[in-house]
Amino acid sequence: MAMNPLDPQEFRRQGHMIIDFLADYYQNIANYPVLSHVEPGYLRELMPSFAPLNPEPIETILRDLQQHIVPGITHWQSPNYFAYFPSSGSTAGFLGEMLSTGFNLVGFNWVSSPAATELESIVMEWLGQVLKLPKAFLFSGSGGGVLLGTTCEAILVTLVAARDKVLSQIGRENICKLVVYVSDQTHCAVQKAAHIIGILPKNIRVVKTMKSTSFTLLPESLVSSIHTDVQKGLVPCYLCATVGTTSTTAIDPLGPLCKVAKEYGMWVHVDAAYAGSACICPEFRHLIDGVEGANSFSLNAHKWFLTNLDCCCLWVKDPASVIKSLSTNSVYLENSASDSNQVVDYKDWQITLSRRFRALKVWLVLRSYGVANLRNFLRSHVEMAKTFEGLVRMDKRFEIFVPRNLAVVCFRILPCAVARIGNGRVQNGYLTTEDAANEINRKLLDSINGSGLVYMTHAIVGGAFVIRCAIGATLTEKTHVIMAWKVVQEHADTILNH
Amino acid sequence: MAMNPLDPQEFRRQGHMIIDFLADYYQNIANYPVLSHVEPGYLRELMPSFAPLNPEPIETILRDLQQHIVPGITHWQSPNYFAYFPSSGSTAGFLGEMLSTGFNLVGFNWVSSPAATELESIVMEWLGQVLKLPKAFLFSGSGGGVLLGTTCEAILVTLVAARDKVLSQIGRENICKLVVYVSDQTHCAVQKAAHIIGILPKNIRVVKTMKSTSFTLLPESLVSSIHTDVQKGLVPCYLCATVGTTSTTAIDPLGPLCKVAKEYGMWVHVDAAYAGSACICPEFRHLIDGVEGANSFSLNAHKWFLTNLDCCCLWVKDPASVIKSLSTNSVYLENSASDSNQVVDYKDWQITLSRRFRALKVWLVLRSYGVANLRNFLRSHVEMAKTFEGLVRMDKRFEIFVPRNLAVVCFRILPCAVARIGNGRVQNGYLTTEDAANEINRKLLDSINGSGLVYMTHAIVGGAFVIRCAIGATLTEKTHVIMAWKVVQEHADTILNH
Repeated sequence: MAMNPLDPQEFRRQGHMIIDFLADYYQNIANYPVLSHVEPGYLRELMPSFAPLNPEPIETILRDLQQHIVPGITHWQSPNYFAYFPSSGSTAGFLGEMLSTGFNLVGFNWVSSPAATELESIVMEWLGQVLKLPKAFLFSGSGGGVLLGTTCEAILVTLVAARDKVLSQIGRENICKLVVYVSDQTHCAVQKAAHIIGILPKNIRVVKTMKSTSFTLLPESLVSSIHTDVQKGLVPCYLCATVGTTSTTAIDPLGPLCKVAKEYGMWVHVDAAYAGSACICPEFRHLIDGVEGANSFSLNAHKWFLTNLDCCCLWVKDPASVIKSLSTNSVYLENSASDSNQVVDYKDWQITLSRRFRALKVWLVLRSYGVANLRNFLRSHVEMAKTFEGLVRMDKRFEIFVPRNLAVVCFRILPCAVARIGNGRVQNGYLTTEDAANEINRKLLDSINGSGLVYMTHAIVGGAFVIRCAIGATLTEKTHVIMAWKVVQEHADTILNH
Repeated sequence: MAMNPLDPQEFRRQGHMIIDFLADYYQNIANYPVLSHVEPGYLRELMPSFAPLNPEPIETILRDLQQHIVPGITHWQSPNYFAYFPSSGSTAGFLGEMLSTGFNLVGFNWVSSPAATELESIVMEWLGQVLKLPKAFLFSGSGGGVLLGTTCEAILVTLVAARDKVLSQIGRENICKLVVYVSDQTHCAVQKAAHIIGILPKNIRVVKTMKSTSFTLLPESLVSSIHTDVQKGLVPCYLCATVGTTSTTAIDPLGPLCKVAKEYGMWVHVDAAYAGSACICPEFRHLIDGVEGANSFSLNAHKWFLTNLDCCCLWVKDPASVIKSLSTNSVYLENSASDSNQVVDYKDWQITLSRRFRALKVWLVLRSYGVANLRNFLRSHVEMAKTFEGLVRMDKRFEIFVPRNLAVVCFRILPCAVARIGNGRVQNGYLTTEDAANEINRKLLDSINGSGLVYMTHAIVGGAFVIRCAIGATLTEKTHVIMAWKVVQEHADTILNH
């Protein structure tokens, strides 16, 4: 009974220590190798085999954290982090999550903590307005928004609603007839979610894209795919269109795709996980033109909206269809507010029952920075990407592989540059020039990441191995981008002159 | 560009402010009404209709938080919180979440941040050992553990694996033949997850339980249910057994249930969301005797293990079956560590791709408090529940409705007490005595919650409305429990003498 794990004095003391630990971490973050270089199993060697029986002081734990954990971390908040997509944290996003963790409430329905539900509805309305989403997606229209953890959840939620909508017309026993459409650039989350909800693997239609059309999903390819399926007696159910694909940030044409989907009564979800945030800037809003024809729209605020993990914003036009699929009615959750139908019970808008108070961090980000600054911040990343792009273009050994959208630059060493330096195996006919280029670009990427000075990742599109430089880490400034290009060039020099 | 949302100095300044805000909150928490009494829509009146264009100082935001948000919060960390199940936060759990939020890394696979994966495997091994889980569930055996958000996810993950295991034998087109078994006391999450993965609603078998056997799932009831299904040509797929049901913390008999399931090749998941934590105490470990026959086991560390939301610990005997159902292979996630098969890629153990560094908080809780203190802490809650139970038993108007397990007491005003005071409508034959008792108990619960002094919730079991007093909030001490009973008595006095 001597132990009080929420003693306010001890909470205060230890909490301040962690704030200082993290502030120091941010201060020194540029000194760490961005990509961790530990070997598999490294931590097991450093940790005891059993949980401690007796308490250990926070000072000891923090020392171990610094000595053993930090070296095994890949520093997503480093200014030299250009991998995957950014996970752009911020002070406001952090504070919001702290408050949510401190209140530690479980806001599954309105009554379990009214402020959690109401603030969520409010920030989703604010953000929907800033994005100029059609009123049909907002609570002030006939739609509404919800905060989930990740896009994977947004896709799963909307897929289940779409599935049940169709099955309620054609009968539950016809689940094996449903078809889900994606492009070969769509995030793998859709195929995973489709599998989870019982769509046959052979009914997940992966429509091919081409380099000549920037790897976007073409409406005519979709139509032809649908025609074949319908002729076979299959039933189109769901299309995921992407605004900003993972590999190259391709922008699927929402207007024409929604038109096609509408003809076949399909649900269209717009996955704008990465690019959606940029649409708060008037000059980028056109990227989601046509969203008015979709059924649902989502973006990850934890990617490029300064909101610490995890936070996916999902808007749906017809919340009733989601609620119909996902509501539960347990007697122990019954309450008069829910019975009154005057409140939102977000448990019925998501996969899980428990939910954190995520609205706080979105609220803090919007208020702490303001929409005008947020726009400028996103713009600054796009400008830095333009700088990087310009630098790549100036080096004749390299090419920009696909036109840049927003702040991701896809580039590679040109096949002709590889051939020119006389790669032996190309000359001797072991490899095609393209294969040789892929091998050299992979080697280049491993080499720059091995330096610890930057971290970038790759994509393979149209058979080509390309390097992605994704700009958007909160601490990244122009100097980091220029330095990153210098690292790429130096390592290319070594590799190409080897 | 003037804005740096991760400026270390500003992070430090604002971070310290929030720590003080939360420390003050814990200091004063007992003064707030536990259950918020705001009206639906209250917050919309207090908030602007649009997101701010310009930044606002943290001081203004915190003032609004205190004035507008806190009154709308139900205080789950209050020592007078006895509703649902506890969400027991702690300083260590909070610090772990802070660190995770501060690093803000996305640990989908090993390479994206090796320490995140490795620490997770280590704490799951530690916790598995402390729980004396059979080696078959641990990495050191042939199983393994993963940290998810909630039990809903643990159930969904294991259901998909179970479904695919059966369908790989009988063919995907037979999904409509699969049956999932639960009791009428099993958490609604199972029915929801079964619906999500495409199990027909009519194939979710809800086996009835009885008061005489403490609302546990009887093996003989399960067998008879299975027999009927098999005779109809249906295929048993999944059984969820619960250790500590939501309504009354009933303990399903794992050994005999697993034996039945084994005969029919069914996957057994053990949902010990609440009661699992207590099994670190030798004297409660028997509650999960028989778990060796199950396929998977989960508990919520955010319920009763001092780990702030969200944190569900799931162990599976056959990780390969989960990975087979949930793995994705995107080229942009390819890396040599994954190719080497020497590492765990947790993205394939869960529904979503992105994942937070949850292991930090479990690590901090285990190290900061130590297993011995954690055991004593859980024991202290059980002791307090015994105290409350004793107080209820001393008042002849009340009954303990089902035998108490652990720290939840289910009680009610006795029907005879209602009749004795001469409820007019009973006397006049409008209501049965049971109905009248239900009405009075509901009135009592509304009345005590309306006082703001305590928050309890209800269950309806065997037709009876019972009040649940769930002890486990971190700050609860014996004085709070005694006071809570006094509140119940006083409100009962008023209602029964009305």
